[in-house]
Amino acid sequence: MSDFRQQALDYHALPTPGKISIELTKPAETVRDLALAYSPGVAEPVRAIAENPDDVYRYTAKGNLVAVISNGTAILGLGNLGPAASKPVMEGKALLFKRFAGLDSIDIEVTHRTTQDFINTVASIAGTFGGINLEDIKAPECFEIEQALIERCDIPVFHDDQHGTAIVTSAGLLNALEIQGKDISTVQIVCMGAGAAAIACMELLIKCGAQREHIYMLDSKGVIHTRRTDLNEYKQLFANNTDKRSLQDVITGADVFVGVSGPDLFSAEDLSLMAPNPVVFACSNPDPEIHPDIANATRDDLIMATGRSDYPNQVNNVLCFPFIFRGALDVRASAINDEMKLAAVTAIRELAQEPVPESVLKASGVDSLSFGRQYIIPKPMDPRLCQRVARAVAEAAVASGVARIDLPKNYMAE
Amino acid sequence: MSDFRQQALDYHALPTPGKISIELTKPAETVRDLALAYSPGVAEPVRAIAENPDDVYRYTAKGNLVAVISNGTAILGLGNLGPAASKPVMEGKALLFKRFAGLDSIDIEVTHRTTQDFINTVASIAGTFGGINLEDIKAPECFEIEQALIERCDIPVFHDDQHGTAIVTSAGLLNALEIQGKDISTVQIVCMGAGAAAIACMELLIKCGAQREHIYMLDSKGVIHTRRTDLNEYKQLFANNTDKRSLQDVITGADVFVGVSGPDLFSAEDLSLMAPNPVVFACSNPDPEIHPDIANATRDDLIMATGRSDYPNQVNNVLCFPFIFRGALDVRASAINDEMKLAAVTAIRELAQEPVPESVLKASGVDSLSFGRQYIIPKPMDPRLCQRVARAVAEAAVASGVARIDLPKNYMAE
Repeated sequence: MSDFRQQALDYHALPTPGKISIELTKPAETVRDLALAYSPGVAEPVRAIAENPDDVYRYTAKGNLVAVISNGTAILGLGNLGPAASKPVMEGKALLFKRFAGLDSIDIEVTHRTTQDFINTVASIAGTFGGINLEDIKAPECFEIEQALIERCDIPVFHDDQHGTAIVTSAGLLNALEIQGKDISTVQIVCMGAGAAAIACMELLIKCGAQREHIYMLDSKGVIHTRRTDLNEYKQLFANNTDKRSLQDVITGADVFVGVSGPDLFSAEDLSLMAPNPVVFACSNPDPEIHPDIANATRDDLIMATGRSDYPNQVNNVLCFPFIFRGALDVRASAINDEMKLAAVTAIRELAQEPVPESVLKASGVDSLSFGRQYIIPKPMDPRLCQRVARAVAEAAVASGVARIDLPKNYMAE
Repeated sequence: MSDFRQQALDYHALPTPGKISIELTKPAETVRDLALAYSPGVAEPVRAIAENPDDVYRYTAKGNLVAVISNGTAILGLGNLGPAASKPVMEGKALLFKRFAGLDSIDIEVTHRTTQDFINTVASIAGTFGGINLEDIKAPECFEIEQALIERCDIPVFHDDQHGTAIVTSAGLLNALEIQGKDISTVQIVCMGAGAAAIACMELLIKCGAQREHIYMLDSKGVIHTRRTDLNEYKQLFANNTDKRSLQDVITGADVFVGVSGPDLFSAEDLSLMAPNPVVFACSNPDPEIHPDIANATRDDLIMATGRSDYPNQVNNVLCFPFIFRGALDVRASAINDEMKLAAVTAIRELAQEPVPESVLKASGVDSLSFGRQYIIPKPMDPRLCQRVARAVAEAAVASGVARIDLPKNYMAE
């Protein structure tokens, strides 16, 4: 086994199993402490909440608590390995919520028979939490699950594999198009992959100005077009009325390639068929649809992004999900709506256009970063992300009427 | 509002809402840390668990994680106030698990329609945890719920209101009888109350040697007897074939009174009717069935216990539940069986018969403690409880065949 793989196992196993623990935020040393924390003192917040349900935010951890919930049906790129195997990923997500946004986060792995059973289970425990982050749930069930939970829960429900990916991709893509001098409303887009992330990315790009008829989506059977009879309701939304059938048909002259499919599915030859000054987001993890070295060797008018941390322009959900929940919870938003998602896109996009402080360069292990082909997306270690994205999201929640309390004074002031 | 009540509210609200948080147990500062904690490193423990399910105990927090689960249908003595209002109590329980046994514990409040919905929800998320502590669920549903979950889950499921109370009560009662020179197998027992705690206490006392036909249980309608037609299946187990109908009928000449009912339901006159050298456990919280001052003024041959921390002999579940889970989880027990419960009874009972270290006296705010009428149960602040009870429970789990791993070497050595 490689050093890195062994180190990853050791990191999870030693000195104690896992990555998160539950700790006390109040004193619990003396008999009096315990009388306040539990019987008889605890009866007071119980009575208060029974009289005024909103007091649950005043006297319990609910308001800062995010559940990371999965059934393990689509774990990373590894497939359907079941709930137990998904636990390290969900604990990892909880770790990121805390590390980047100070949110308390606990993983919940759900074992279920039907999709409805999963929905019922999550809806039944939702009151425990301030928000729910759905994770690694396979398509198309994930769409039905998220929609049903959004309707049944009065707290934010957000499937990060869809919307986190879509938000970061859209922010980077809009910056790339600006640099390439292209207009989102006229570009031809090829999307390889038709799963949760692909569909969410394209839907959000359309909300950012892309034209649905300019998008060619491909699944394992090729171009998704109106003559296909094998499409689920979600793919049907991207059925293009076209005679084009192959990747080569649609990539020829295309401005944008977005890959959310699998490794090495996009060749140098495919890339060479694209229009001048193309934008290529090869987001398959850990191995992109086309390796950045091959892509950059093929043409020099390219702007390239991948999921890899060891190359420029990493598309990484951690740029979004901790902060969209931070902002949503800080104004007790009842949901994460399109206005909040688009506010996150703009905040992430604009931050990449700003000068980068020395501290961020150091933390990111690079000498310099300035807005351009090699820097269209902020670095994960940029502490300004929390301020900018959380504030933009919270403001959008208030403006769009889903916030239940106003912005704290000087919220996320720098 | 009284000072104490206001202090209890402030304790829960300030400086941050609630009493628990989720923290990181592994480094998460550098890009490399995050590559180990999340993508791509996290794929390694995922693969390991997919191949060997037991590895979930090696690479995740599951093995030290206890869920405290309620539906808020019987919160403390306050009744059915709903899931949200129960959250401070469940967080308090989580605080006690951490404070006394080092167990990571998270509260889950369940909103449901039918009892079966509740069972299905808890069973669906059980795989997340190493054990499940059910809390503040009303009778008789709590019996069906616990039984169904024990059958469906491969981890310990324990309704503390039943068994924690029963274990601590039995330990204290056996010590009291020893001091009074009475034999559990011959004593006449009156149990006022027929709810979850009452029934569990009497069932465990029977396992400790009490005779079912020597037990008179009373509910709000009086003595539970074989002619009653209004009894649920759980009360029926205590239907006594007797002509006695009132408390006065059964308390006359009785050796033991156990109250798990409500305040001031047992009068000085009732007490005066008991046999010589009686044992009175008035466990209603916060106000006992008879105030200790009244009881002690009524007769001096009495041994008295209550739920109050400001009088001797406090019956407090915290003497049991953190440690029974500690022991069960440390040998990965698949359940908490009678052998483990009885081992806990004996460990708690024996500890009260030992000399008390200065440190425990200090922490408990008393000058001296020695086994006798005023000290039949250990003090909550006694650090020996974790060692003694957890070890006894773990050993019983191994001996009774429900442990999935052996005792760690020098487990809980002092």
